[in-house]
Amino acid sequence: MASPQQRIEDTLQTALAGAEAGGAPPRLAAALRHAVFPGGARVRPQLALAVAAACGDDAPALADAAAAAIELMHCASLVHDDLPCFDDAPLRRGRPSVHAAHGERLAVLAGDALIVLAFEVLARAAGNGRAAARLPALLAVLAARVGAPLGIVAGQAWECEDWVALPDYQRAKTGSLFAAATEMGALAAGAPARDWRAFGEWLGEAYQVADDIRDVAADPAWLGKPVGRDQHLGRPNVVAEMGMAGALEHFEQLVQRSADAVPAGRGAAPLKALLRAEAARLLPPALVAAQRGAPLRAAA
Amino acid sequence: MASPQQRIEDTLQTALAGAEAGGAPPRLAAALRHAVFPGGARVRPQLALAVAAACGDDAPALADAAAAAIELMHCASLVHDDLPCFDDAPLRRGRPSVHAAHGERLAVLAGDALIVLAFEVLARAAGNGRAAARLPALLAVLAARVGAPLGIVAGQAWECEDWVALPDYQRAKTGSLFAAATEMGALAAGAPARDWRAFGEWLGEAYQVADDIRDVAADPAWLGKPVGRDQHLGRPNVVAEMGMAGALEHFEQLVQRSADAVPAGRGAAPLKALLRAEAARLLPPALVAAQRGAPLRAAA
Repeated sequence: MASPQQRIEDTLQTALAGAEAGGAPPRLAAALRHAVFPGGARVRPQLALAVAAACGDDAPALADAAAAAIELMHCASLVHDDLPCFDDAPLRRGRPSVHAAHGERLAVLAGDALIVLAFEVLARAAGNGRAAARLPALLAVLAARVGAPLGIVAGQAWECEDWVALPDYQRAKTGSLFAAATEMGALAAGAPARDWRAFGEWLGEAYQVADDIRDVAADPAWLGKPVGRDQHLGRPNVVAEMGMAGALEHFEQLVQRSADAVPAGRGAAPLKALLRAEAARLLPPALVAAQRGAPLRAAA
Repeated sequence: MASPQQRIEDTLQTALAGAEAGGAPPRLAAALRHAVFPGGARVRPQLALAVAAACGDDAPALADAAAAAIELMHCASLVHDDLPCFDDAPLRRGRPSVHAAHGERLAVLAGDALIVLAFEVLARAAGNGRAAARLPALLAVLAARVGAPLGIVAGQAWECEDWVALPDYQRAKTGSLFAAATEMGALAAGAPARDWRAFGEWLGEAYQVADDIRDVAADPAWLGKPVGRDQHLGRPNVVAEMGMAGALEHFEQLVQRSADAVPAGRGAAPLKALLRAEAARLLPPALVAAQRGAPLRAAA
């Protein structure tokens, strides 16, 4: 079987080819492709496939669809979050953001089309038998983790309120799509979503804390986008709240909780290895080097 | 059984209550409610329920969900189309548009959340048995009629191209959600979508032509939004292309073709009656009065 990376890229390519098919407005098609390729680390879909593998992966096409659906939602959220009315971000992944390259109107529409495409990819993979029986639960989780009241759209909407509790904001904005990844990876392989939710939620919170740390401390060239955006935008940032040492300590704790939440079983060891690799990748190299005197605890 | 109008409003209320549930950012919840209530004529969901009734309506909760999903997509498209980067419309249904009332950021997010909610409503209604078996086809039609390459998002994206064929633009922008209404009404009741597609497509084209006519000739107070927007925005308009007499003639032909496309059977007569009532409602009263010397042909 192809590597997880290859499975993810192949499924995304097939999905995009469908959206660009005959009759698509050419500029919309270009904006969609810009939003999805080349990708970032594809963390969420890799997580989904890793959980599916830990659960036996008995319907791999459905797991691929679940992974791709989550990544398409993530891409949609980046396109809309980068819009002038939100972050007004000129760069993403080291090149112009979708609205900078294709205009604001096509960025709005590309985000909309990617949300629709995510559900479409999942529905197409349903087919018959075990895949069809798992479809309603997969759809329900995807919708809950993306929409209102508690998904990533709601997380972004907390930026429009006068007051927000930082954990609620981070749980919705970042944690929810990581929870979707672990839950949908399990569901696609016929396992209960409930057992895998905490693992994804803790990892999502860790990821958001790392994002806040990078926003304060990273080299923009390494990061591929400007730093200091949270402060510039008056947005909650855990480093501003806890200080850098506190934020690093908090990050370590969250990674450890995530590792502890992996259900016991044959698949636990490779998942914890993936988690360790991911945690190491998340922090700026210069910051990690500066911490050598007080090294980060191993994740698991 | 409740009236179609009541079924539609009840299903939309239940869907919105879920999106506003505990933990939702209050301003996002308010923007969502503003986008959906009070509604317009609810033409598309009524069409879906009328087709479901003509096909036996043996799974009414699924038909309700299909109707509500289509209306939620329609509301999402209005919210995004009204944004400053598109129509910059201050008014909708006689009161401030969502971005005018709640700001641009919440308008983007409310549209996103409504797209997700549409799929969620459909997935929740699936349950077991006949409803579950019909879910993949319903999802596929909804996604195809909304997303890329040929749905309403693509239709809106044609406004970002230098050149577009007017029928392609209208078919995607308006026709596709009418086709979704007739196809999904049929699918929800276990009938093939294919037989009902042409009816919805013709009616959708007629609706778009009537919209263009209203934009040129209506009283803004009657219409509930400003007129002359197409010309102001340099947007294709069939009256500009054909003249008013040609546009009215074209509208009549499209309504007639729609009536002719209703599959024969017990349910055909009430559907054609609904079509006649709808066609009469679509044109500005003053324009219809002026046409008395040359009355519009009966629709069926």
